[in-house]
Amino acid sequence: MQTQQITLNSRPEGMPTTDNFSLDNALLPPLKQGEFLVKNLWMSVDPYMRGRMIDRKSYVKPFVLGEVLEGGAIGEIIESNHNDFPVGAKVSSMNGWRTHYITDGSNHTVLPETPLCESHFLGVLGMPGMTAWTGLNRIAELKAGETLFVSAASGAVGSVVCQLGLLMGAKVVASVGSDEKADALRAMGIEQVINYKTTDSLSAALLAAAPDGIDVYFENVGGEHLFAALNNMNDHGRIAVCGMISQYNDTAPTPGPSNLANIVMKKLKIEGFIVSEHWQHYGEFSQQMGNWLANGQIKAEQTVYEGIEQAPDAFIGLFEGKNRGKMVVKLA
Amino acid sequence: MQTQQITLNSRPEGMPTTDNFSLDNALLPPLKQGEFLVKNLWMSVDPYMRGRMIDRKSYVKPFVLGEVLEGGAIGEIIESNHNDFPVGAKVSSMNGWRTHYITDGSNHTVLPETPLCESHFLGVLGMPGMTAWTGLNRIAELKAGETLFVSAASGAVGSVVCQLGLLMGAKVVASVGSDEKADALRAMGIEQVINYKTTDSLSAALLAAAPDGIDVYFENVGGEHLFAALNNMNDHGRIAVCGMISQYNDTAPTPGPSNLANIVMKKLKIEGFIVSEHWQHYGEFSQQMGNWLANGQIKAEQTVYEGIEQAPDAFIGLFEGKNRGKMVVKLA
Repeated sequence: MQTQQITLNSRPEGMPTTDNFSLDNALLPPLKQGEFLVKNLWMSVDPYMRGRMIDRKSYVKPFVLGEVLEGGAIGEIIESNHNDFPVGAKVSSMNGWRTHYITDGSNHTVLPETPLCESHFLGVLGMPGMTAWTGLNRIAELKAGETLFVSAASGAVGSVVCQLGLLMGAKVVASVGSDEKADALRAMGIEQVINYKTTDSLSAALLAAAPDGIDVYFENVGGEHLFAALNNMNDHGRIAVCGMISQYNDTAPTPGPSNLANIVMKKLKIEGFIVSEHWQHYGEFSQQMGNWLANGQIKAEQTVYEGIEQAPDAFIGLFEGKNRGKMVVKLA
Repeated sequence: MQTQQITLNSRPEGMPTTDNFSLDNALLPPLKQGEFLVKNLWMSVDPYMRGRMIDRKSYVKPFVLGEVLEGGAIGEIIESNHNDFPVGAKVSSMNGWRTHYITDGSNHTVLPETPLCESHFLGVLGMPGMTAWTGLNRIAELKAGETLFVSAASGAVGSVVCQLGLLMGAKVVASVGSDEKADALRAMGIEQVINYKTTDSLSAALLAAAPDGIDVYFENVGGEHLFAALNNMNDHGRIAVCGMISQYNDTAPTPGPSNLANIVMKKLKIEGFIVSEHWQHYGEFSQQMGNWLANGQIKAEQTVYEGIEQAPDAFIGLFEGKNRGKMVVKLA
């Protein structure tokens, strides 16, 4: 059995290019006892992977040059010598960026039966959805009646944050990078949407959208967005810091916002978090999210690229704003 | 009865100068029923007053041009038509920047008997001491065995933070702006003291002083100190933001640190606080602090300027690093 797989060819400097990746073929050995063969159906590309391409100490270890990349994937078992993993079962794993692989099942989860497309286990029912839920519930502790500001609001995480915010009774102000994305959020019921690329001053636009100030900021972007949020936060506001995608491809240090003194003046709390440290709450999350999806209270958008050869473009597209909702690659 | 008083003459741009202040004489009216006359013994100058000299919305209202300034003071009652405030009693108030005044006693507290100099109610037993205690106990929740980094460590707040940190069982790393201040802290038992003015890289000096990283940063300064702290924080570190004195006299926006992405990577919590919102815990604080002072476990340093005409220089001196411990002005 042959697999196609993508390796990291060189470490990107600044914005990644397709030259940083290689697509290779490899022959898989015969299946041993206790192993099974997976055909990947879907793989995930996520902004955090950019950090793993840098050779530094961080919360996940760096990717190794010349080795196959890793990331969330959903596959189907097509051959099995393992009693717990029968042929036909669908599994989630971190073995993305390849079409087929053999495993003994460690770090694999058999997906429950669901009427939803199984790709959503990479998005709204997976890491990005759980990130949105954790940030609002466990980090920022958003309350009904508060005003929530969300940056990168049409992304995999942001689009769930917006919808969850509405369900939790908040007024939601969203920032996106195109009019098309803004329209899509308005269609979801988000009334205040800012296209930050066409505003002169994001800070002024935020004031106009939320004249009574921001209580919670869900931070995905950094830079100008953090500056605008700090200017518009109310006293005792909370900032849940999920990511700062505007800086992931910086080749030189970018200065931070000049208005950090608001942290004292407004008595703000700013907290970074990594969803993997909150995974013990996944059961609670997935039950709630499953119900919201079934009721249509949360809509799961995704942007699909087809074929493993498109995976590098899908990944690069994350930093060019090419996705609405979760970006996934359909492998089979 | 005549009083001497200092008014705000003009709003400082950048570093305040003595021209921003006027010293005037005024005649006090005769005492009415329910009033008493106070001769101020001590007045406080504090960095937060710089913020009140700017005409903007903040957590305390701005000073009014041409009116007498306000601030913490300790005085003695020298004439009284008020049963609760007898002649000879010492009172604390916010009626600083003047030698004498008449009041009906609102917002006045009669000081308890103490063997200490009453000026310490402006320092270690007052707002700065309570700020140190609140930041470590209620905001950063410092634990025994952790490493604490303190900036402006020989100031009114910082010098108490350092000593409290030791009492709480932490390893303390302090940053100060002169070798003399560094020596004074070492004499108090703080082993790791950095003179930030003579280091090439504060970040590298901090790494050398705390090779296992920083768990709690008590932030008084901002700018380069925040940058160095973020680089050296451990996972789940906490930053209690008390002030950012390095920026109070900026005339143009100063960019923030370029390494804020550490907030996510290290899952940091950064929280600003204002001590007045925690004043309901003053009783608990003052009992503990009174004991520590009596036992000699905390030493209260102060820098004293004499005479109301020196008050502007004392205030300006705060931003020139002229104080060790609490800066006060002796008025009588």
